[in-house]
This record gives sequence, C-alpha cells and structure tokens, in this order.
Amino acid sequence: MKQLDSIAKLIHTFTLLPGVGKKTAQRYAYSVLDMTDAEVGAFVAALKEVKETVRYCAVCGNFTDRAVCSLCETRSRSLICVVAYPKDVLALERVSGFKGVYHVLHGTLSPLDGRGPDQIRIKELIARLDGAEEVIMATNPDVEGEATAAYLAKLIKPFGVRVTRLAQGISLGSDIEYADEITLSKALEQRTEI
Amino acid sequence: MKQLDSIAKLIHTFTLLPGVGKKTAQRYAYSVLDMTDAEVGAFVAALKEVKETVRYCAVCGNFTDRAVCSLCETRSRSLICVVAYPKDVLALERVSGFKGVYHVLHGTLSPLDGRGPDQIRIKELIARLDGAEEVIMATNPDVEGEATAAYLAKLIKPFGVRVTRLAQGISLGSDIEYADEITLSKALEQRTEI
Repeated sequence: MKQLDSIAKLIHTFTLLPGVGKKTAQRYAYSVLDMTDAEVGAFVAALKEVKETVRYCAVCGNFTDRAVCSLCETRSRSLICVVAYPKDVLALERVSGFKGVYHVLHGTLSPLDGRGPDQIRIKELIARLDGAEEVIMATNPDVEGEATAAYLAKLIKPFGVRVTRLAQGISLGSDIEYADEITLSKALEQRTEI
Repeated sequence: MKQLDSIAKLIHTFTLLPGVGKKTAQRYAYSVLDMTDAEVGAFVAALKEVKETVRYCAVCGNFTDRAVCSLCETRSRSLICVVAYPKDVLALERVSGFKGVYHVLHGTLSPLDGRGPDQIRIKELIARLDGAEEVIMATNPDVEGEATAAYLAKLIKPFGVRVTRLAQGISLGSDIEYADEITLSKALEQRTEI
C-alpha cells in the first residue's frame, strides 16, 4: 500500500525533531490522526504562536516575547553567565543560587564546522562588559565548550573583568542541559578563575 | 525564570504524543524555536493537511483521502484481514504475501475499559461477510486481542465463512506494529482455523 501523501509528509516533518527516527515519526503521525480536530488545532496554534511571539532578547540573546527579556531588565548586570544555548539558561535557572544575567552565544567555536568568532554572539558579549565585574563561563565541558571558554577568557581579561569557569563538578563529556541540580549548584559554587 | 507562556504551551502540546515526557517535549519545543519560518510553516501545513484530507474508508475503516480506499477498490473482497488499528495495516502491507482486503476495528474488546462490541467496528464487519470466503484475525496476541478474535470467530462462523488466526509465530505479548517482516510472513502462511 502506498502511504497517503499527507501522512508521509507529516511523518517526514516529525523526523526533523531531534532524535526522532522513521518509526517514532510514524507513531507520532498516527497519533495525530487519532487526535480530535480541537487537539490538532491547539497543536497548530501552539506552533504558530511560538514562532510569532518568541524572539531573541536584544541584550542576552535568550528567548523572550519582548525586546529585552525580564532577566536582563530586573537583575544586576555585573555578573554575566555565558552559555551556548537558551536551553542551558533554563537548566541554570532551576538552581536557585544564581542571581546574575546571562549571555547566550548561540553556538560554540568549532573551526571544523566553520563556526568562527563571527558566527556566535561574541561581539555582543564584549559590548556588555562595561559595568561587569565577573563573567562565568558555563559552556559544556567538552572540546568545543572548553575552547570557546578559553578563547573568551583571553578576550575578556584585558578589560579588567574577572573570568571564571563552572567547576568540573559537571562530569566530562556530559551536557549542561541534562545535569542534575545539585551538580550544577556545586559547579556554580566552586567556579574557578581562568 | 518563568518559562514563556507560548513555549510552555508548545511543550505541553508535545507531551500529547505517545511516549513523550516533559524533558523530551522540552527538547522538541526548543528545536522548533531553532527552526526557520519555512520549516515551522511546513510543520503547520502538514498537520492541517493530514487533518483535512485524511478520513476513514467507508468500507474497511482504514485511513484514506477518498470515500473508499484504493485497497477496497482494487482487491478481491473474498479474503478479509481484521486488525485493531490502521498502523497494523501498514505493517501487514509490508509483507508482499497478502492480496486481500482489510477491516480495521479501531480498537479491541475491553470490558474493563468500557469497550464493548458496539464501541468497535463489528457490525460493519458483519455487513461485509456476503461474498467473503475467509476472515483472518490479525489482532495482537495479547489478552484483549485474543478475546476479540474469539468473539468475532463465534459471530462469523454461522455465516459459513472460514475464520482463521495469524499463526503464533508472532511472539506472545508483542505488538504487530513492531513485528519484523519474516515473522509476519510466517504468521500469515501458517494461519490456523479457529
């Protein structure tokens, strides 16, 4: 049986999600067929709304529905935590200890993939250093994350700003996004000068 | 940080998909935020199209974009294979051996869940028996699937139609949807009279 074009198309769309293969996409598509019109309508509306209302904060680069996000507006800008992706902000915010602001790079340096300093939000970070006392590097503890942190540290130190790194409480090769809260909390506490 | 309402809504929507928990839904939602407008547009269009064009075949109950599906229109109706869900048709069609038509019950008998004979497409099956020579029961080899097959067999036999069951080549407790093709092929070949 040739699969209906519209079902095949929906299956293909689901494979665009991270970690979704053909079998899983097929399960998802068939579950959509079993949904009520209202449920599919809500799905469509949620996708549209997210794309229409969510944009990047002009200061930190995190997701927001305003020009400048609520964190940048309300918190002290003297302590800046640098992360690679918005999802890392979410993970760090689950730790109650941190009271500073963030800077989302939207990537890490990766010469092999053609991502140099101009491809990630480095000059936006440099522009924020005026008034900053400390920058915490919270990129992932993998090769690219470490290289990015080291590169930024060298760039920032001449401005007289203290540069620290999350303690290696986070196990090597793992993802900040999935770290548990205690590990993240420890890593914040024991951040070290670089 | 309070998560943006629109992101939270999208995360909730993704948890409606089978087997998707909060963490996975969050990953999916953030990947949508990283998609281009065109990609999200295609996603929305695929969802809408599937809901608008796909309906149930008036004869067999499988998904189709016409009144009567292409299988019911072109194949011999003397051999009917009864399955619980449309996804099972897809699995059986991957086996080249079967040349009959299908009947999708859209569920199995399950008194505990309040699904009796009137909740699944049994009377539509009975209405098709005129001209049928054999009905193959291809419900899952679990308690509900077996009970449904036995119930239907008792109902159909008085019409003088042969009733068979997929051979237990499919391992007990497993899902027809995920069976490999050789197992399914064997099970078709060795179907037994009930």
